[in-house]
Amino acid sequence: MGPQDQAQGGYRGDATLQALLDGHGGGQTVAAVRALLRGIDAASVDRSDDGWLDLIAPGAAPALVSELRALRATVATDRAARAAQPLAALRAELARRGLGGFIVPRADEHQGEYVPACAQRLAWLTGFTGSAGLAIVLTDVSAIWVDGRYTLQVRAEVDLGAFETLHITDNPPGDWLATRVPAGARIGFDPRLHVDDQVLRFRRAIERAGGALIALDDNPLDAVWSDRPPGPLGPVRVHDVAFAGKGAAEKRAEIAGALAREDVGAAVLTAPDSIAWLLNIRGADVPHTPLPLSFGVLHRDETVELFIDARKLMPGVREHLGNAVTVAPPDAFGAALDRLGAAKTKVLVDAGQSSAWVLGRLTAGGAEVVRGADPCALPKACKNPIELDGTRAAHRRDGAALTRFMAWLPRRLAQGELKEIEASDRLEAFRREDARFRDLSFPTISGAGPNGAIVHYRASPTSERPLQPGQLYLVDSGAQYLDGTTDVTRTIAIGQPSAEQRDRFTRVLKGHIALATARFPAGTTGSQLDTLARRPLWDAGLDFDHGTGHGVGSYLSVHEGPQRISKLPNTIALKPGMILSDEPGYYRTGAYGIRIENLVVVTSDATVAAPEREMLGFEILTLAPIDLALVERDLLSAEERAWLNAYHVRVRDVIGPQLDVPARGWLDEATRAI
Amino acid sequence: MGPQDQAQGGYRGDATLQALLDGHGGGQTVAAVRALLRGIDAASVDRSDDGWLDLIAPGAAPALVSELRALRATVATDRAARAAQPLAALRAELARRGLGGFIVPRADEHQGEYVPACAQRLAWLTGFTGSAGLAIVLTDVSAIWVDGRYTLQVRAEVDLGAFETLHITDNPPGDWLATRVPAGARIGFDPRLHVDDQVLRFRRAIERAGGALIALDDNPLDAVWSDRPPGPLGPVRVHDVAFAGKGAAEKRAEIAGALAREDVGAAVLTAPDSIAWLLNIRGADVPHTPLPLSFGVLHRDETVELFIDARKLMPGVREHLGNAVTVAPPDAFGAALDRLGAAKTKVLVDAGQSSAWVLGRLTAGGAEVVRGADPCALPKACKNPIELDGTRAAHRRDGAALTRFMAWLPRRLAQGELKEIEASDRLEAFRREDARFRDLSFPTISGAGPNGAIVHYRASPTSERPLQPGQLYLVDSGAQYLDGTTDVTRTIAIGQPSAEQRDRFTRVLKGHIALATARFPAGTTGSQLDTLARRPLWDAGLDFDHGTGHGVGSYLSVHEGPQRISKLPNTIALKPGMILSDEPGYYRTGAYGIRIENLVVVTSDATVAAPEREMLGFEILTLAPIDLALVERDLLSAEERAWLNAYHVRVRDVIGPQLDVPARGWLDEATRAI
Repeated sequence: MGPQDQAQGGYRGDATLQALLDGHGGGQTVAAVRALLRGIDAASVDRSDDGWLDLIAPGAAPALVSELRALRATVATDRAARAAQPLAALRAELARRGLGGFIVPRADEHQGEYVPACAQRLAWLTGFTGSAGLAIVLTDVSAIWVDGRYTLQVRAEVDLGAFETLHITDNPPGDWLATRVPAGARIGFDPRLHVDDQVLRFRRAIERAGGALIALDDNPLDAVWSDRPPGPLGPVRVHDVAFAGKGAAEKRAEIAGALAREDVGAAVLTAPDSIAWLLNIRGADVPHTPLPLSFGVLHRDETVELFIDARKLMPGVREHLGNAVTVAPPDAFGAALDRLGAAKTKVLVDAGQSSAWVLGRLTAGGAEVVRGADPCALPKACKNPIELDGTRAAHRRDGAALTRFMAWLPRRLAQGELKEIEASDRLEAFRREDARFRDLSFPTISGAGPNGAIVHYRASPTSERPLQPGQLYLVDSGAQYLDGTTDVTRTIAIGQPSAEQRDRFTRVLKGHIALATARFPAGTTGSQLDTLARRPLWDAGLDFDHGTGHGVGSYLSVHEGPQRISKLPNTIALKPGMILSDEPGYYRTGAYGIRIENLVVVTSDATVAAPEREMLGFEILTLAPIDLALVERDLLSAEERAWLNAYHVRVRDVIGPQLDVPARGWLDEATRAI
Repeated sequence: MGPQDQAQGGYRGDATLQALLDGHGGGQTVAAVRALLRGIDAASVDRSDDGWLDLIAPGAAPALVSELRALRATVATDRAARAAQPLAALRAELARRGLGGFIVPRADEHQGEYVPACAQRLAWLTGFTGSAGLAIVLTDVSAIWVDGRYTLQVRAEVDLGAFETLHITDNPPGDWLATRVPAGARIGFDPRLHVDDQVLRFRRAIERAGGALIALDDNPLDAVWSDRPPGPLGPVRVHDVAFAGKGAAEKRAEIAGALAREDVGAAVLTAPDSIAWLLNIRGADVPHTPLPLSFGVLHRDETVELFIDARKLMPGVREHLGNAVTVAPPDAFGAALDRLGAAKTKVLVDAGQSSAWVLGRLTAGGAEVVRGADPCALPKACKNPIELDGTRAAHRRDGAALTRFMAWLPRRLAQGELKEIEASDRLEAFRREDARFRDLSFPTISGAGPNGAIVHYRASPTSERPLQPGQLYLVDSGAQYLDGTTDVTRTIAIGQPSAEQRDRFTRVLKGHIALATARFPAGTTGSQLDTLARRPLWDAGLDFDHGTGHGVGSYLSVHEGPQRISKLPNTIALKPGMILSDEPGYYRTGAYGIRIENLVVVTSDATVAAPEREMLGFEILTLAPIDLALVERDLLSAEERAWLNAYHVRVRDVIGPQLDVPARGWLDEATRAI
């Protein structure tokens, strides 16, 4: 699709626009267009994406297009003005309702990683913008909980006079509730925003204190959130079967068949990525993940009820969905749950990701709830051959973009100071040149020196550092292409690295290789493989404090379950077609960070002539050089050196032809045999 | 204590014995002595153990001792005559009570590995003698479930016309119940024999079928079990603090302190090994584990209520227990739970090992149940320095016994055919020579050729094979010494091994070494280490189907939690002082089995000069040669060869001086450097 010119000239007024709309036909009003534009603005629509024009007036003439662009430029995007006293406003509302407190999670109704602006309740109330947290407001005291990643950030963003800041595992909310809730107090929560287990823990703690936990039909915070953004209206498009590899009807039939075999009547789908996968559609409601926020019910007769704002549907989507998929507004979801109850249906619910509200409404209505995994999760994780071909192609192009960036770096550094944001902007620009590029797959982590040691670092104009000699530069980035999602980390020596840096990098590399070359019997979980990536660090009394690998979607979430490579228990067996990251690291606080990340896909292993077990292994997807300046050759075994040299030959062969002459020369040197 | 002479001459009659008892004083009657002897007979008292005499008449004169020995010889030990129709008898009893079925587990009230004769309900009903299983009897159909270890054995032992035999995970009881239970049927179970989770699953399945699950106060099987053995009366002795390393009062204070910190009033103890550890006592109620079957309640004021048959207590035990421990009969346990309820006490219960009956009685009585781990489990697992010194000493002597056996083997084989039972009897005899030997720690696995491939093999006169050239001999054995529990497996080549056998053995050895030499940060679990032991097999397309390591007690259970090295998730961090086995294997069905097992203890690791993390490692306890005839030298790395040579130097240095000259010559050769 490529970047588009932006609007020229100003907005000529509602009358002019209405006349142009009337001339176009379709019955649009300026008021409806304004509402739609506010929703689009609240979504995560890439600046290169002109699809919003088709949501309003498909095939509009240039005059109408120009006027619509002009109108869009006038829509206020200012979110800065937070209500002066959200906490006081909320407390007043609680008092009005006779409540002694209220629980505010970071999650929205979908329990996903990214939350749209209209559901950023925790940020509105407290100012905290991290990706995980929880606040509890009582009449006289309030607290906010975060994990170890955010202990510094929360103190910078939150009014410490208003909120006690606590660590989520060291001082869990349950303990706090048990001692702070006055006997007789009624503490409210919004059951749409919590899973059952969490509610149970809150209830137990509050009842221990002699209080009561009350599920609220309407959220008191929403009632006082005066400047709340509208729900996002990111355009929903068909995900072509040429990329999806399997038609939506076939997927519906397969999953419905699985329900029938389990003697289940229907499955409630509350994870938007499951719905996107099942129906072969993609959206733009949240940043970096092409999700259409929506709910669904899949029936064993292969029909689907899709609950989504129909204004988001691009031309052709309804036809693509077909007669077996009925579209209804999100508000109608509750009534659908009631219908399942009235029919005494046996309903599969993933209680780990569907809210207590869903469970409660089904049960109250008379449905028989069967708790189990989201039936789309495992089929979605096991990519089909077309999806795998797509991701291989995407990785070839993405590797070229990253390699061009790596080749550009020393030339740019020779010209003067280079800071983190300019570097990541340049990398993004290389990626954007690809026709199938749609978005980054997450905000790039571009960290020089000590910033590289902050695992979830995000450069800002005040935090960014120049890339200086003797330092390491860590860049973790990825993109959403129509044919695949990428995620790659490289650590690059600026100037001459120290012996310690080389030792640590080489240990991380040994762990990376040990995992990449693992051969394991069918049935093995990611948890079983995690230690392979850590042992070379353990041998030196070192470790890293994050998971070793996460699942990755196909033009979908860059963090996808159910598989995971982690020291935490995960009971999901790795299966052919699953995409995972292999990303051990090492971090020396205040000094430098190291991470080496490739994506890999689980494959059948055929390297042993007559195996007694069905064996699996990994195929490497990511193709970009690993900085040899950081490799301590003698710390590698002969097998590890052979692996590194063979990987670099493959990088050179596949990436080289996509580069210009200077970059190709750089790559030849960067991938020399050691 | 050593072996004792057995009774000479016959029993001279009750009048004579009563006169002798009267002369001795103490008020014993012949009737009470007979009952006691039946209980002792139902316990697991080693034939060398004369302690039973002290239970009846401490310090008895020779005439009384002689008469008591004679009486004991007359007590019937015949258990062969099973009721002709246990199933029919049970069904009649169920009909009489208006029940449509009954569930018969293998577990007793303590949910332990070993079950006394009086609780072998599953064996009485079905004939099945394996260590895990479950039967369900309905009006017209019945079934028995076992796991993969017992699919052959169950078909040999059970009347297949009466019982359908099913695999516990492939065809779980819940599915069977859901389809076989008639609507309206009342299915009974004994809540003392099941944990809560299991009951929940049964209830759900039965209610799905329209039936009802009924907890029964008295067990209908026990009502028709006419020849049921009495409860075991194994003598209970003080476990000297010289071995225990910490006084019972100090342990009570520590655990009660932990309860107080958690604001818990009392903990219910239903695991006899926890009670044995807490009170520094040992018993003889079940084979191979010196457990006193009993229940306990530990209060936060450091007092203990101990529910045990007082006839088991050897002289001095009551004094040892002291005033803080009250002794009451097992029947009084229920009333104690009621008292906790009446006092609204907050009670800690390990719901994974305490029965539904305990939970139900506490809750019904008004107690607040806090579900959590048995508070003795973790402190018991982390051995104190005295216990560690004891186990090191026990392993030095046990290694000498095993080495003498290994040296004896080739000499004995030179004299003619040697079969599995003679071999294991000889090994047991070597161990029995030790003054601190009390029992084997489990029935020895002595498997030649194909029998070695059966992981839970137990030789019988019909199954045993001779140790033949070209075959491997696998011997997995251990003992209970007063100062420690041992468990060791060696695989020995008889004659010349094949190249394949050497390859497989060496891969198992590589895995064994990888685990033994692991260095890992504090917080690491056994599950995280499991893969280290498997990878050399995986590399060749091979694996083994059992756990890699289990916890081991201190003169207590040879299988002890909560830690475990397994591919199954276990969230218990390894801590210094924990004893574990390191026992990877390889099994080729119908041909041979390989396993190499040492016990190790978790220690602080000091091999890295300046570690960033607190690092742990393993100290090896077991000392016995590893058969070099099976080692393929070139498959080992230089580091692995160095490990093997250093281990053998240590074996030679520690074990050599305990051997006679011929055995020492054999050991020198067996531990040569490679």
